[in-house]
Amino acid sequence: MKFAKRMDSLKASEIREILKLIENPEIISFAGGLPAPELFPVEEMKEAARAVLEEDGQKALQYSSTEGYLPLREKIAGRMEEVGVKTTADNILITSGSQQGLDLSGKVFINEGDVVVCESPSYLGAINALKSYSPKFVEIDTDDDGMDMEALAKVLKETEHVKMIYVIPDFQNPSGRTWSVERRKQLIELANEFDLPIVEDNPYGELRFEGERPPSIKSFDTQGRVIYLGTFSKIFCPGLRVGWTLGDGEILQKYIFVKQGADLHTNTLTQREINKFMEVHSIDEHIEKIKNVYRKRRDVMMEGIREHFPKAVKYTYPQGGLFTWCELPEEMDAKEVFKKSIKENVAFVPGGSFYPNGGKENTFRLNYSMMSEEKIREGIKRLGKVLKQEIETR
Amino acid sequence: MKFAKRMDSLKASEIREILKLIENPEIISFAGGLPAPELFPVEEMKEAARAVLEEDGQKALQYSSTEGYLPLREKIAGRMEEVGVKTTADNILITSGSQQGLDLSGKVFINEGDVVVCESPSYLGAINALKSYSPKFVEIDTDDDGMDMEALAKVLKETEHVKMIYVIPDFQNPSGRTWSVERRKQLIELANEFDLPIVEDNPYGELRFEGERPPSIKSFDTQGRVIYLGTFSKIFCPGLRVGWTLGDGEILQKYIFVKQGADLHTNTLTQREINKFMEVHSIDEHIEKIKNVYRKRRDVMMEGIREHFPKAVKYTYPQGGLFTWCELPEEMDAKEVFKKSIKENVAFVPGGSFYPNGGKENTFRLNYSMMSEEKIREGIKRLGKVLKQEIETR
Repeated sequence: MKFAKRMDSLKASEIREILKLIENPEIISFAGGLPAPELFPVEEMKEAARAVLEEDGQKALQYSSTEGYLPLREKIAGRMEEVGVKTTADNILITSGSQQGLDLSGKVFINEGDVVVCESPSYLGAINALKSYSPKFVEIDTDDDGMDMEALAKVLKETEHVKMIYVIPDFQNPSGRTWSVERRKQLIELANEFDLPIVEDNPYGELRFEGERPPSIKSFDTQGRVIYLGTFSKIFCPGLRVGWTLGDGEILQKYIFVKQGADLHTNTLTQREINKFMEVHSIDEHIEKIKNVYRKRRDVMMEGIREHFPKAVKYTYPQGGLFTWCELPEEMDAKEVFKKSIKENVAFVPGGSFYPNGGKENTFRLNYSMMSEEKIREGIKRLGKVLKQEIETR
Repeated sequence: MKFAKRMDSLKASEIREILKLIENPEIISFAGGLPAPELFPVEEMKEAARAVLEEDGQKALQYSSTEGYLPLREKIAGRMEEVGVKTTADNILITSGSQQGLDLSGKVFINEGDVVVCESPSYLGAINALKSYSPKFVEIDTDDDGMDMEALAKVLKETEHVKMIYVIPDFQNPSGRTWSVERRKQLIELANEFDLPIVEDNPYGELRFEGERPPSIKSFDTQGRVIYLGTFSKIFCPGLRVGWTLGDGEILQKYIFVKQGADLHTNTLTQREINKFMEVHSIDEHIEKIKNVYRKRRDVMMEGIREHFPKAVKYTYPQGGLFTWCELPEEMDAKEVFKKSIKENVAFVPGGSFYPNGGKENTFRLNYSMMSEEKIREGIKRLGKVLKQEIETR
């Protein structure tokens, strides 16, 4: 039997294999991107489930529209004002997490051999989702303000069959960096010039610990070319698999068609439960609680890094989100460090997989949302020791 | 901006447009394929949600494995014995409805231009899901025992790039027909000879009103080439979007990879709720209740058809499932009948869309699961009147 050609390029995600390794509860894990489960609104969800099933149980368990539950779409549309976007429920499609928005983006835009332009490094899950549509990836270097716009302009000028620009402008996964407003505007200008869609993936933007939330790239979009992906995974509960795609007119229609073929619609009951939660409680207050916890964990991690990591290790300072990103001296391999570190019961993700075309094996990602302050302190101390040994003996 | 080529072949499903038309509660609808919502176990789901969140709320709301919740997969594996398949949880992947199993099947097997062999007519949702991967469809005629095996053998001999055989052997959508055991065995023999995978889509098999449930095609598969798709949509609640893919070894691994890219995993909470329901209640008793109601509705519809439809209309007699399938004299167009019928507030689905390559506009599908016996009686009477007029004045 023959599989489709696209299957040759797909392999089990390295992260997934690592996550299996670390099911051992003794391991201090900075590897995943999991929200802290102790912050999940378990009681409120119990109450929401009861209320939804009591008030309209039959409808909550029945097939529903591909677009999603209207009251929830209205609430999401309203919340988009926070990132400078005035929109309505008509422009919102509920998806099974924002991950599905990535898969649908590939389906809507990419022919085999087309080029996806993305940040270097970029989100592994997006790379894997898009790979199903057999594109080539062109990576653009990034710095603390986002993508290098000169490099992007050059690539767009010189490259044929570019079909999509994919970016994560807020607390990027894996780098933890946030784009400046200036770069956001420049990106839109370039996309307009080259008539390209932008997929703006924003799962972390609401988790800002300090400073002002910048306007989304979508907010500068006057031509309907930005598709914005959002999710309840990081601000509510990821196990529920509810996210959204915001897009204009014809584009969103295409997403709705392919969503229909992919799974008909997202879980009706769950959509109604999240809507009920938002009716009864303030989701902003809930987000505030999450931020307070993650801010402290970020602080503890950054203090630990300053104290215990050798000076030769560079790292980013995230103002929100879940990750910081470290860079070892160029000749080093983070996978080798991982092997030593896991012996000390400390896990992280080596960075190589975040580069769709490979390379930069001297990088790794640290997550601070999942572990307690105490474990972060201890884990970073142990990791610092491993790093010192590795750097000294190289 | 340019969309992917595949988007040219996709259009909003006709059924979907019809379903929008018939939101008017005065309409007697035989159009959808919706389960009867009054049979949904609303109270039991309320209790299951409470119990799951109380016992293990944090895990129920967290990311979980792509494969799905192990206890649920174990229960599904056990239930496969009913169709003659001895298997374990290792061979089960939880999907977002069996619809997602169709999308994943396309992703795993189909290159642009490859051939999918299917029944004529076939399930519209499968055609739409697979179209995303730009195959050609070759339809094989069917009769009351399933696919015409001589026609299939001829096609397999004469056609290049056949990549998959897609069938719905039990109470087929749209025809309501069930394959004989003999044809099932013959299909496996041909698939072995031509080294092809079979996707056996079985959402309705558990809803058998009379007679013995035949062994699945999978049960005759000694070479691991059948992928079996199941779902809780018709035997429990479709709004929950939980189905499964049963496949062997390497094949299931491929499905797991593409599922991971598509949406990471299916709703954790919902998987646990269904598992809890099955722990506390007998799902077989629940299915028995559904069957008793649908059997009567089927009977009322068939009686009505016999009494009110003109003799020139042929129809199938389903021993289970949700649908019967009607054929008008060849020169007639069911879409024209629909226009008259909807004026009498009776809806159904014209059959043309169920043929991936078009044709057979003289067919239509009737659903009997959703309407009360009284409404079925009245609706079939009205439809019979319309049909008589149309047939007499043609």
